[in-house]
Amino acid sequence: MTDEIGVGMVGHAFMGAVHSHAWRNVHRFFDVPLTPRLAVLGGRDATRAKDAATKYGWAAVETDWRALVARDDVQIVDICTPGDTHAEIALAALAAGKHVLCEKPLANTVAEAEAMAAAAEEAATRGVRSMVAFNYRRVPAIALARKLVAEGRIGDIRHVRAVYLQDWLSDPEAPMTWRLRRELAGSGALGDLGAHIVDAAQYVTGDLITGVSGTTETFVRSRPDGDGRAEVTVDDAAVFMARFSSGALGTFEATRYALGRKNAMRLEVNGTRGSLAFDFEAMNELSAYFEDDGPAAGFRRILVTEPDHPYFGAWWPPGHLIGYEHTFTHEVADFLTAIGGGEDPAPGFADGLRVQRVLSAVEESAGQQSAWTTIGDPR
Amino acid sequence: MTDEIGVGMVGHAFMGAVHSHAWRNVHRFFDVPLTPRLAVLGGRDATRAKDAATKYGWAAVETDWRALVARDDVQIVDICTPGDTHAEIALAALAAGKHVLCEKPLANTVAEAEAMAAAAEEAATRGVRSMVAFNYRRVPAIALARKLVAEGRIGDIRHVRAVYLQDWLSDPEAPMTWRLRRELAGSGALGDLGAHIVDAAQYVTGDLITGVSGTTETFVRSRPDGDGRAEVTVDDAAVFMARFSSGALGTFEATRYALGRKNAMRLEVNGTRGSLAFDFEAMNELSAYFEDDGPAAGFRRILVTEPDHPYFGAWWPPGHLIGYEHTFTHEVADFLTAIGGGEDPAPGFADGLRVQRVLSAVEESAGQQSAWTTIGDPR
Amino acid sequence: MTDEIGVGMVGHAFMGAVHSHAWRNVHRFFDVPLTPRLAVLGGRDATRAKDAATKYGWAAVETDWRALVARDDVQIVDICTPGDTHAEIALAALAAGKHVLCEKPLANTVAEAEAMAAAAEEAATRGVRSMVAFNYRRVPAIALARKLVAEGRIGDIRHVRAVYLQDWLSDPEAPMTWRLRRELAGSGALGDLGAHIVDAAQYVTGDLITGVSGTTETFVRSRPDGDGRAEVTVDDAAVFMARFSSGALGTFEATRYALGRKNAMRLEVNGTRGSLAFDFEAMNELSAYFEDDGPAAGFRRILVTEPDHPYFGAWWPPGHLIGYEHTFTHEVADFLTAIGGGEDPAPGFADGLRVQRVLSAVEESAGQQSAWTTIGDPR
Amino acid sequence: MTDEIGVGMVGHAFMGAVHSHAWRNVHRFFDVPLTPRLAVLGGRDATRAKDAATKYGWAAVETDWRALVARDDVQIVDICTPGDTHAEIALAALAAGKHVLCEKPLANTVAEAEAMAAAAEEAATRGVRSMVAFNYRRVPAIALARKLVAEGRIGDIRHVRAVYLQDWLSDPEAPMTWRLRRELAGSGALGDLGAHIVDAAQYVTGDLITGVSGTTETFVRSRPDGDGRAEVTVDDAAVFMARFSSGALGTFEATRYALGRKNAMRLEVNGTRGSLAFDFEAMNELSAYFEDDGPAAGFRRILVTEPDHPYFGAWWPPGHLIGYEHTFTHEVADFLTAIGGGEDPAPGFADGLRVQRVLSAVEESAGQQSAWTTIGDPR
Repeated sequence: MTDEIGVGMVGHAFMGAVHSHAWRNVHRFFDVPLTPRLAVLGGRDATRAKDAATKYGWAAVETDWRALVARDDVQIVDICTPGDTHAEIALAALAAGKHVLCEKPLANTVAEAEAMAAAAEEAATRGVRSMVAFNYRRVPAIALARKLVAEGRIGDIRHVRAVYLQDWLSDPEAPMTWRLRRELAGSGALGDLGAHIVDAAQYVTGDLITGVSGTTETFVRSRPDGDGRAEVTVDDAAVFMARFSSGALGTFEATRYALGRKNAMRLEVNGTRGSLAFDFEAMNELSAYFEDDGPAAGFRRILVTEPDHPYFGAWWPPGHLIGYEHTFTHEVADFLTAIGGGEDPAPGFADGLRVQRVLSAVEESAGQQSAWTTIGDPR
Repeated sequence: MTDEIGVGMVGHAFMGAVHSHAWRNVHRFFDVPLTPRLAVLGGRDATRAKDAATKYGWAAVETDWRALVARDDVQIVDICTPGDTHAEIALAALAAGKHVLCEKPLANTVAEAEAMAAAAEEAATRGVRSMVAFNYRRVPAIALARKLVAEGRIGDIRHVRAVYLQDWLSDPEAPMTWRLRRELAGSGALGDLGAHIVDAAQYVTGDLITGVSGTTETFVRSRPDGDGRAEVTVDDAAVFMARFSSGALGTFEATRYALGRKNAMRLEVNGTRGSLAFDFEAMNELSAYFEDDGPAAGFRRILVTEPDHPYFGAWWPPGHLIGYEHTFTHEVADFLTAIGGGEDPAPGFADGLRVQRVLSAVEESAGQQSAWTTIGDPR
Repeated sequence: MTDEIGVGMVGHAFMGAVHSHAWRNVHRFFDVPLTPRLAVLGGRDATRAKDAATKYGWAAVETDWRALVARDDVQIVDICTPGDTHAEIALAALAAGKHVLCEKPLANTVAEAEAMAAAAEEAATRGVRSMVAFNYRRVPAIALARKLVAEGRIGDIRHVRAVYLQDWLSDPEAPMTWRLRRELAGSGALGDLGAHIVDAAQYVTGDLITGVSGTTETFVRSRPDGDGRAEVTVDDAAVFMARFSSGALGTFEATRYALGRKNAMRLEVNGTRGSLAFDFEAMNELSAYFEDDGPAAGFRRILVTEPDHPYFGAWWPPGHLIGYEHTFTHEVADFLTAIGGGEDPAPGFADGLRVQRVLSAVEESAGQQSAWTTIGDPR
Repeated sequence: MTDEIGVGMVGHAFMGAVHSHAWRNVHRFFDVPLTPRLAVLGGRDATRAKDAATKYGWAAVETDWRALVARDDVQIVDICTPGDTHAEIALAALAAGKHVLCEKPLANTVAEAEAMAAAAEEAATRGVRSMVAFNYRRVPAIALARKLVAEGRIGDIRHVRAVYLQDWLSDPEAPMTWRLRRELAGSGALGDLGAHIVDAAQYVTGDLITGVSGTTETFVRSRPDGDGRAEVTVDDAAVFMARFSSGALGTFEATRYALGRKNAMRLEVNGTRGSLAFDFEAMNELSAYFEDDGPAAGFRRILVTEPDHPYFGAWWPPGHLIGYEHTFTHEVADFLTAIGGGEDPAPGFADGLRVQRVLSAVEESAGQQSAWTTIGDPR
């Protein structure tokens, strides 16, 4: 057993549950340099936080995140709250010398994200690490896609086609949630789903988006909330076109109204030598086409479950699939490895900021009749 | 055997070959009120036209399309030439009282298309019929999709997602062709491929596009042409966002650079009660999702090969697939039925004009930093 | 235009319709050395035969197949009747010096098939050609599969897995047909569907079945027939295990009760270097796995629509699919090419006999508690 | 937190790893009446057992399974050893009043399985529970399949088609393992893979196999083992035909030589009203066809990830897939629920015995020229 490292996690809803699973199990599968200790769970309601701590295996509870950050038994702060509190918690944690894992989107505004990226850069000089939780990078198929692009097997990229389709708002009477309030969530499908596909597209291509033209829509303007109805103040769907610094052309769509598509995070890349396609609803597969396969060329359905595929060697024999939560175990493994190795993990807050700038440009464009909008500093 | 009707076809390249097959065989499978007689083939080069006439089964040849239009044994003029000659031939044929089937896109400019639509409207008062050859409407799966939407099984449409992906220009050294010259083709992927998905989207949804924001790209600026190189003067790829009169949101992409996608004309529609998805590379299938299927809901892979499916009753037993050229046989069957029944076939030139206006708006938007551009008269 | 060759076709039901289409169109797409003339259609009922001749384009009609065989304007006899008449017609035609194309299964008994194969062998010495109509060999994907095996890309074959699934008898009240009468059809699913997969398996592997163990079932013993019910005297389904001369192990299943499977003629082959999989319901695709593809190995979905794929060069651009009847056009093209070239076409009657022996061994095994039954002369 | 129950697990290879994960996490997701305590891990080599205990989270280690069974802190004995030791350990544990979870196949011989089933039946009268670990029953899609059959939505079953395809022995130089030694493993693909599909087929249909005809093959007779080679004494592949008590016809195949198929445990069921199809390589999906879907009928691709689908409510939102090890978590949850509720879990040892009898009949048939062999007591 390696040295332990104490984790304090703020928030215990969906993301809290899945992060807990990762912290609890990562060292059972990966040779991480540090073994996480589930020290303390942060939640504003003491009773609910205690129940969650028991269920998920956390040793203690704090109702004030500041107290959590301040604890000596916490070396990592894991932020699983809505986006409106990310900046405040992350800045405090980094200042206190705690490594920070922060859920995506990094923040609700570019200004917050810039402050966080600056703080992260400064903290890194003190050996304090930070990472933004774009877990889809840790899908083995997505990681393999990036590898194939990096090896040049796809050639120069010409097209990127990304959609993230869900359907849980299709029903106009689906209830109100914090995800539909701008003050908490920052945006709707754009920030929640669009952030993932923007990051994945930039990650897989190794390229950056330089400009966008977008439009957004709110199909259902109010929803049931308790006895009454509450106004929806975010987008239900967002679509945009993009150009990458290489000259590649991209299309993006994020929606919660694609009936029958449950979690269809899809990415297709077409290059001069090959193409790649991915759909999270078949997350253990990557489709790949290589032009030099000649008369027997065709999209290969690669089952990304071999020992030499990214991450999969830690799990089961080929063909014994893994699921959604594994991406978080991979994420935490990478984070612990970076901390233990004294290196900055990826994606860092700077990467989160880049995504934020793209999302912000989409909103800006949408507000200006879809006028083409460049990304201030695409770095 | 029913009465014969003489056909004169102008052009004998790809479209000419497939139209010939349809004219030759339609009455063997469909109970059409008129039996086509392959009277005359038009082609500027006498030798090549004669060879084509022999190969495809045409009785005579004319090297001047005006002579073809003027012949007494021609009651239908079928226009299979590049877009720059559509208007001239169609106007002459309609004026001469000949029924006209015209390949898509209807014309190279909105002005030409307007003139054609006006002429077609006038000709109809004289019992002269005209149709634009959007053959994908005649894919049984696409026709079934429209039927399901019309029956209300998809509910109100919220999203349309259409791409038409080919890859024959991926190789930068692929040779020059008339399809890459603006003066002949009007536009590139936009008019060739985009026209099909715009028409299919409007046909399946029964709705019209009211505005767009688009951008286009020419990845390879010049191509081998004989001993030298010629400049490519059309778009290689076009992407655009659209809104429909119902409020639905659409994304469209047409490209010839999607390596590995050979003829991936795809359409997905998401509504409040269900969803539909189609891919021409599996053209005998329609995917359909119905929310009221409950816990056993899932995208149904409907093999559209039953006797009670659109058009299929004319062919083989279930599961015995049909192919690309069948869509033209269906098209010709519908055209003959309309002529015989004294009714206007669909899609008429007015429908072709509507598509032209959308394509024109995309180009206009692309030239203005993707600014949102409304469709003048969406009717 | 090449020299004409007169065709007389006996039978005008399903197979007659699709053969007619092939004879009518083959020279429009393939450079065949002889152009078929649709000389005469044979059918016992004069009125129905005349109607069919008009519909399908035949110049004359005979109600006695003997008269058809005897005509001077007939050089090819195409047998599209039920299996009970194949032997008699074929023997007469070959004796009369007419080339013979015979629908499958070659005959209703091994004895008949032996006589036919012997007659064909003798006729070949006189330049008279014969072929059995295993049209699935002419699916481009199946032909490509054989090519890949022959090139050694699959290595040594270890497993063959073949099913042919239809569902048109699932309903116990589906009406009686000649296909369910032993005296006409010889057998049920076994001869109708099983014959195809036995031939396809032997064709693709280039190997022969040496022994089988089988069982058959008749789920529904009588069916509506006019005002009453008629007894079903053939199998509804047949399953069998097989060994090939190479040592490969095979499983086969033919049924008309696989609800939802419309024409699922499937074949999978696993070898020491690769695997192949095919499903007629996606007939333009071949799945192929090559072990030496390394970490990016996966089943390739090859769209078998390239100019350099078998047969496809005669048709449309890549991705523009073909359908069921094209396999007959290919068959007729190959037959005409063999006749014109003075060579024996494949599959010949000897191949049909081999299939017949396998089917017969399955029935023998089924009658003996599935005891393993060797194929007399597997050649 | 509920009362704890001590678990002793014998064996710590592949199955040990995955069972450990289930015991460690089950109560984090399921409301089980008892919380497992990972009390002791059994392994013959003390060092390796200790390493495994540390890695997987077990509190103590025993090198003699008898000592493990005897411990007071062990109430459940989980048997993850090769099949040759199942009977001995299970009988001792049941005699000692310990609940037993036993990996499949239940035993290496019918005689052992009979003794185990008898002991389990007797133990149940004392409140001691036993279960055999057919984890594929706990794939949500498989459980949903059974539910649909039980509800009558498939009608009467006519066909069962089951294969379990792997490829890890395709390479003739893949090394020797205990799984290829008859004295340890009992049989090869038949017991390892065939057991799963026999159980799944009987579970989903709710029906029992009454007779079989089979054949087996060992493609590679010896394999590298240390510096030399060892003889393979089990089957590499087994195929068999089967009949169910309802009259349904089945085909089964188990192999480790299907190159490119990594863990393709597939099951298809055709009934009079519908059909079902499953492939573990897409384990979150069930395909279902319902005849009464009419003209829009097609195989539905049901993503079995809804809250009201079997087991899935314990996990993530729809479309957020689960993987292989989840089936073991479900298994352990069901086992704990049965123990806590004082009920016999399913599948019990009697179910394991039924599967064993089928496998034994296959071997018997294979040894007698595939003669049809009835299952002694199919109950």
